[in-house]
Amino acid sequence: MKQVSVGVDIGGTNTAIGVVDESGHVLTKDNIKTPDHGDIDQYIQDLSAAIRKLITNAKMLNENLEVLGIGIGAPNGNYYNGTIEYAPNLSFEGIVPLVELLKKHFDDLKAVALTNDANAAAIGEMIYGGAKDMKNFVMYTLGTGVGSGLVVNGDLVYGADGFAGECGHTTLVPGGRLCGCGALGHLEAYCSAPGMKRTAFELLVKYNANNSLLADKSYKELNSKMIYDAAVQGDKVANEVFELTGHYLGQGIADTVHHLSPEAVFLFGGPTAAGDLIFKPTIKSMEDHLLPIFKNKIKVLPSKLDAGDAAIVGASALVWKELE
Amino acid sequence: MKQVSVGVDIGGTNTAIGVVDESGHVLTKDNIKTPDHGDIDQYIQDLSAAIRKLITNAKMLNENLEVLGIGIGAPNGNYYNGTIEYAPNLSFEGIVPLVELLKKHFDDLKAVALTNDANAAAIGEMIYGGAKDMKNFVMYTLGTGVGSGLVVNGDLVYGADGFAGECGHTTLVPGGRLCGCGALGHLEAYCSAPGMKRTAFELLVKYNANNSLLADKSYKELNSKMIYDAAVQGDKVANEVFELTGHYLGQGIADTVHHLSPEAVFLFGGPTAAGDLIFKPTIKSMEDHLLPIFKNKIKVLPSKLDAGDAAIVGASALVWKELE
Repeated sequence: MKQVSVGVDIGGTNTAIGVVDESGHVLTKDNIKTPDHGDIDQYIQDLSAAIRKLITNAKMLNENLEVLGIGIGAPNGNYYNGTIEYAPNLSFEGIVPLVELLKKHFDDLKAVALTNDANAAAIGEMIYGGAKDMKNFVMYTLGTGVGSGLVVNGDLVYGADGFAGECGHTTLVPGGRLCGCGALGHLEAYCSAPGMKRTAFELLVKYNANNSLLADKSYKELNSKMIYDAAVQGDKVANEVFELTGHYLGQGIADTVHHLSPEAVFLFGGPTAAGDLIFKPTIKSMEDHLLPIFKNKIKVLPSKLDAGDAAIVGASALVWKELE
Repeated sequence: MKQVSVGVDIGGTNTAIGVVDESGHVLTKDNIKTPDHGDIDQYIQDLSAAIRKLITNAKMLNENLEVLGIGIGAPNGNYYNGTIEYAPNLSFEGIVPLVELLKKHFDDLKAVALTNDANAAAIGEMIYGGAKDMKNFVMYTLGTGVGSGLVVNGDLVYGADGFAGECGHTTLVPGGRLCGCGALGHLEAYCSAPGMKRTAFELLVKYNANNSLLADKSYKELNSKMIYDAAVQGDKVANEVFELTGHYLGQGIADTVHHLSPEAVFLFGGPTAAGDLIFKPTIKSMEDHLLPIFKNKIKVLPSKLDAGDAAIVGASALVWKELE
């Protein structure tokens, strides 16, 4: 029998699901929409059906599969309790006992476990990616929100109540932009994909830049991919969006370095596909903000996991860990 | 034989030395000046002489003492290498191999070890103080600078190179006050004792407050104790200094909570003797900056160690740990 686990990555927009083998290879995967109407019961039904279907598909490819469990990465996911609690980018309200609800549909599996989606990505990086030989590193995930997974002495940091690693909610700009969580000036409001859009419109306003390639998109329409496309075409506003995003991100990463003294910081998620456009200003800003003892020591690296699979693979790794 | 260790706390102004027993009781202690002229050889001689004298004194009280080793807490102290590296508040330049230099004077002892002064205080809190039953907590030390010691899963966080826990150098105010380290807007520039003085003069200027009790002190003369004395006498400027210091400190602590999800944050050092004056605005500001998942969960507590002894006791605890 070939043993596999199911990895589930719950994002603000999509939920990605994959069947993953012990070496971190994704055998088959699928996506469903994460609902924006907050109906958790309907979501659990849809998610369970999608997982069942995916397992069936995987078994058609190899009938000797044994599915051991389901690992879930979710914003504000609490590893200790198996709950999603007050996630600012999800429409589910209050505390959602996701593991308990999902177990009702999968009482045949040996393990159902959940953590922060960024923690899951960090576990994936540690087991299969660029952090294989590292005991102290940090992963920042840039997407609809900004998450982070912190690894100290080879272990993920969960903290006293399971919620450690919310670096996206450190304050970068006192009294600054409204964050999805309700506070002001958090990193996520500047360095997420929507944060980049906000920066783009701030710059359009600042320069009254009617000639920018970004000037013919509505506020609702513009996204970070469009900003990237404009930047590589030489659009000044788009390029300055990346400069500023890197500036903010570097400030935040420096704060994390001052806390934890990591060997490396991995960046993961859509905006990091822009390569040097985002990495160069991020590294420059980080160095500018660092104490002399940390300067020119900290590696800032792109995640080595496939863009679409890191969170799935990381989430699935939770299962192997549960069964250790 | 009664086994003891020597704890040394190197501060920007004074170096405190104590002989400490296994239960954390300081048997005898002394102070020497930390030099401001940067002569490390003279300092090592003075420090060694002071330690020898203190050991002699302790043995006069109890001739059955066995001194096991010396534990040192120092700013930018590197546990892994036994060095002090580029400490912004000390006059020693570059990398000082303190453990190596001190061992030449004490080759009869079983252990000489060094860490960050705030890490040392955190170890003291964990072994003898208010964090005895905690696995995840943070200690902020407010003095000439601001240090911090981070404990995750019952262990001190040293990071990849031994320098973790420099929370005093997170950026609170982008482009703000010049920090001792050369960067702008760091927490230490606002929440240290000199930071409070800077805030006091900022407020004297803002209100042109000639009638404040603080208005007849020179810039060089004013210190945090004078600000405290004026605050308890009802001086408005002095009270606002504590409000603002707490506001800044709470912002910084919230960033730390978002990283590590600690059970509690301990505050240690001169300014914390002001009690509610500093704790109330700190807690309010921290709560204002926290994600909902952390609100009303995190204890902010005064250190339970004697004000003068926490760093000595913590440093001495390093010795017991080395010999475990």
